[in-house]
Amino acid sequence: MVFKAEESGHEVTAIFNGVSLDSLNNYSFLKEISLKLLKESGFNILESSEHVFQPQGYTFMVLLSESHFALHTYPEYNSIYFHLYTCRKRDTEKIFSTLKEIFNPKEVVLRKEVVRVKF
Amino acid sequence: MVFKAEESGHEVTAIFNGVSLDSLNNYSFLKEISLKLLKESGFNILESSEHVFQPQGYTFMVLLSESHFALHTYPEYNSIYFHLYTCRKRDTEKIFSTLKEIFNPKEVVLRKEVVRVKF
Repeated sequence: MVFKAEESGHEVTAIFNGVSLDSLNNYSFLKEISLKLLKESGFNILESSEHVFQPQGYTFMVLLSESHFALHTYPEYNSIYFHLYTCRKRDTEKIFSTLKEIFNPKEVVLRKEVVRVKF
Repeated sequence: MVFKAEESGHEVTAIFNGVSLDSLNNYSFLKEISLKLLKESGFNILESSEHVFQPQGYTFMVLLSESHFALHTYPEYNSIYFHLYTCRKRDTEKIFSTLKEIFNPKEVVLRKEVVRVKF
């Protein structure tokens, strides 16, 4: 049987503003907590890649069976950008509410989009 | 001098619907043309990863100095999803207009968002 994707994908973009530099610059924690939350929400991790920028900044990307996840830190603005795209229904609410509890941002700008992939 | 990101990031999501299976399933071409267009628009490629799904489907992700790029094919719907996020001003128009010329989709759904990363 050929796998058939759902007719709509789900995209979540979140900006966490006003995050403390201590938690924002803890790259290994950012990576581990992202992988943990993705797994707990039923995502299947295929591969991940990361880059530590000099003198500051971090990018982490995850290739999922269900599409992809990415985060970028902005230490100069105390901000983190998160992006998650999934072609299968998953509990993305839990991921972002838990990240919010952990990183305690002063402001969260969250945008969700339903992406229709069937013509 | 510490690099200071621009205060706004730019996100482009494009769905190409009605793409022929021949071009959609040509993974090496999808990869090469994406890298070529990103480079031509001034993006700096740091790392890329890809996954060929069984029995069908392809994901390609690129970690950029300027953030990230991702694509996912939906052969079951003749569609390709593209996502590009850049923390620095780049000519993203050219990338998507050229992709459109090449893949000749019956429909394009393009969404652009300005993402404010400064609190």
